[in-house]
Amino acid sequence: MRGVLKKVRAAKEAALRMGNLPTELKNDALRKAATSMVEHRGEILEANRKDVTLAERELKRGKLSRAFVNRLKLDRSKVDGIAKMVESVAELEDPVGKTLYACKLDEGLELYKVSCPIGVVGAIFEARPDVLPQISSLCLKSGNAVILKGGKEAANSNEILFRLMKDSTEDSGVPEGWIQLIGARREVMELLRLDEHVDLLVPRGGKEFIKFIQQNTRIPVLGHAEGVCHVYVDEHADLQKALSICYDAKVQYPSVCNAAEKVLVHRSIAGEFLPRLVEIYSKAGVEVRGCARTREIVKVKRATKQDWRAEYLDLVISVKIVRDVDEAIEHINEYGSKHTDAIVTEDRNTAMKFLEGVDSSSVMWNASTRFSDGYRYGLGAEVGISTGKIHARGPVGLEGLTTSKYYLIGKGHVVAPYVGPSPKPFLHELMRKTWNEVKGGTG
Amino acid sequence: MRGVLKKVRAAKEAALRMGNLPTELKNDALRKAATSMVEHRGEILEANRKDVTLAERELKRGKLSRAFVNRLKLDRSKVDGIAKMVESVAELEDPVGKTLYACKLDEGLELYKVSCPIGVVGAIFEARPDVLPQISSLCLKSGNAVILKGGKEAANSNEILFRLMKDSTEDSGVPEGWIQLIGARREVMELLRLDEHVDLLVPRGGKEFIKFIQQNTRIPVLGHAEGVCHVYVDEHADLQKALSICYDAKVQYPSVCNAAEKVLVHRSIAGEFLPRLVEIYSKAGVEVRGCARTREIVKVKRATKQDWRAEYLDLVISVKIVRDVDEAIEHINEYGSKHTDAIVTEDRNTAMKFLEGVDSSSVMWNASTRFSDGYRYGLGAEVGISTGKIHARGPVGLEGLTTSKYYLIGKGHVVAPYVGPSPKPFLHELMRKTWNEVKGGTG
Repeated sequence: MRGVLKKVRAAKEAALRMGNLPTELKNDALRKAATSMVEHRGEILEANRKDVTLAERELKRGKLSRAFVNRLKLDRSKVDGIAKMVESVAELEDPVGKTLYACKLDEGLELYKVSCPIGVVGAIFEARPDVLPQISSLCLKSGNAVILKGGKEAANSNEILFRLMKDSTEDSGVPEGWIQLIGARREVMELLRLDEHVDLLVPRGGKEFIKFIQQNTRIPVLGHAEGVCHVYVDEHADLQKALSICYDAKVQYPSVCNAAEKVLVHRSIAGEFLPRLVEIYSKAGVEVRGCARTREIVKVKRATKQDWRAEYLDLVISVKIVRDVDEAIEHINEYGSKHTDAIVTEDRNTAMKFLEGVDSSSVMWNASTRFSDGYRYGLGAEVGISTGKIHARGPVGLEGLTTSKYYLIGKGHVVAPYVGPSPKPFLHELMRKTWNEVKGGTG
Repeated sequence: MRGVLKKVRAAKEAALRMGNLPTELKNDALRKAATSMVEHRGEILEANRKDVTLAERELKRGKLSRAFVNRLKLDRSKVDGIAKMVESVAELEDPVGKTLYACKLDEGLELYKVSCPIGVVGAIFEARPDVLPQISSLCLKSGNAVILKGGKEAANSNEILFRLMKDSTEDSGVPEGWIQLIGARREVMELLRLDEHVDLLVPRGGKEFIKFIQQNTRIPVLGHAEGVCHVYVDEHADLQKALSICYDAKVQYPSVCNAAEKVLVHRSIAGEFLPRLVEIYSKAGVEVRGCARTREIVKVKRATKQDWRAEYLDLVISVKIVRDVDEAIEHINEYGSKHTDAIVTEDRNTAMKFLEGVDSSSVMWNASTRFSDGYRYGLGAEVGISTGKIHARGPVGLEGLTTSKYYLIGKGHVVAPYVGPSPKPFLHELMRKTWNEVKGGTG
């Protein structure tokens, strides 16, 4: 059997036994993994040093950026931060075993829809050593087996982190083989073909990378290709709020997917608003590009057609003057990426029109697009942000790593009496009983 | 613009306005469509006669089966049944606009996760005239635009049913273009490539057809390829219940996906159970195939390796003797199709082991696999049965045609104060307020 298939089969085997792991066993395993990372901090830093040495050689050859090497590099406090993050997943509510629907179909015939793990998750990510512990912790908590593939520049760091996660969780009773590491790019191509065995892919990285994955596999992909987020400043906007939101959404952290890339401005307030906006952006070093009408009001570079679709992830923003909220909605639905878009207005009806009309995973009224995040949304941890509409949309927490299963319990019931010319009617009474009560023998 | 792309774009345009349709408007539209079908019954039957005449010619040439022609053929009462089904969708609860999560992130900063339509659904189905009204009613009720492609043998019937659905619903205020019909097979291939515009495919038909769709598109597909359902008769089974369930699951309606295709029998009761099982199956005309050990007990055909994976959809069943519940679980997870599997036993622990260990969308204890169905499960109507694990699993009701969207409402909130060395903490208080209350101005 080929290497990847063998690993995936082992993971599948483990996955079949992971749906019923007691919450406390999973939490203990996570806490042990965290402790083990602190205890083996020296080895982790040693392995990471090898990666960094190689990366700095590439940096000198101009093949990698300083920012890349910085993201790769670990120190004592970063390792402790990773351990703390793993431990924090133990504190989250168990997403498995929740009764989503309970219905008495007839006397003695009870149906339960219960959340359960998806099965085998493939996680493919860039060269950041914190991703492996994070995604594997989330998979363990949600009862999924995981196949990990990290960026090759972090190979040594990933190897030791993988080993520590595997050993401490399997020692705690998590089925052997639940976590698997693959290395070469050739192995990724093989993984992408295993749609019979891998249930979900969670890729992290740049948009080209994610598009490549999406176009080369039949496995469902959870993720977003890009975040082209808009702030629309309405004619009824409180301009002070508008300035503060536009500033925060662009400047506070420009290289992330929920940062704003475009500001749309209602024509009736453009004359008053734009000079103030350009002033605060200029002070923060933001390059502003504008449509023809914007450039009649403020001196900025010209925005080309490509600008409306661009995700800069940098201190650049494009500004367009629009006729009204309808044009703003239309523009966003045409050029946006269905990630996160905000309106600034004091007019309730206009806000509602915008919120319901914009077809994005998160829509905001008088708040910065930067709030679009699993932790800030109260989901505890974030698997990713989905701009797809199937399965999960927007910031995705542990729930996005579960699916559901129907349990039907009868006393020998057969379908025959319920069909035909005078069928026995169903009761279809919703019940408050949970599957856990049935399982525990108290239901 | 090519024909299919033009239709899909028109549907997308309509879809953007369908998320906010009032429930009553949608229900009125469905009732008008139902009335219109009764009023135009004569035209429907006339169009159907053309289809049936052509099909009977093919039948004579041996290119179509009698069963096929029967499924195609409408009469007065069948048309009235279709109209009644359309009307019944109006009675179902609106799946759109439900508040799934409401959380106060901080004072004045409120988050709502709300169910909403998916967008544009592509429905590809076989030559049964009742499918077009059914799937388009479900799409309308869930606020989705729909692209319909029916079997070519029902072209005339589909054309008139499509026209009646379109005219009566658009007259009632549903956005023009929400329903589109495409014809040629070439157009289907074009549809499968439009993953930028079509959000979900709902194919109906045989497994080869569904596999073809799945392998030729990047659009997510909701559906099941096949139903290889098992009944496991445990050593602690009540044999009377077991006989009755095995009979119902195979004989009551053998050509459907939730009919049983295999019976697994615990070795310790095989001697007593199998002769009785073969007796009732034989009386019903069921061909029984058995493993080597089965054939030591009863005189039946030999089951080959292919039999364990086969979906007969006919009066054929294969029987295997297993060592214990563990072997039954292992066999089902290896050879089943993750659709529906049942255990017959009076032992609670064995039942729990089976129910939790079998990785299928529906698992049953002392009940016939034939209950696996949206209507019987109390979901009101069934979009299909999903054996995939992503988005929806098992019998899928209207909820499976929805996704969700996050609404965040602030008072000018920005992220900056919530990050950095001494960040403002979030409240993350769950709220009971719904998005509908906010919308209505009462929240």
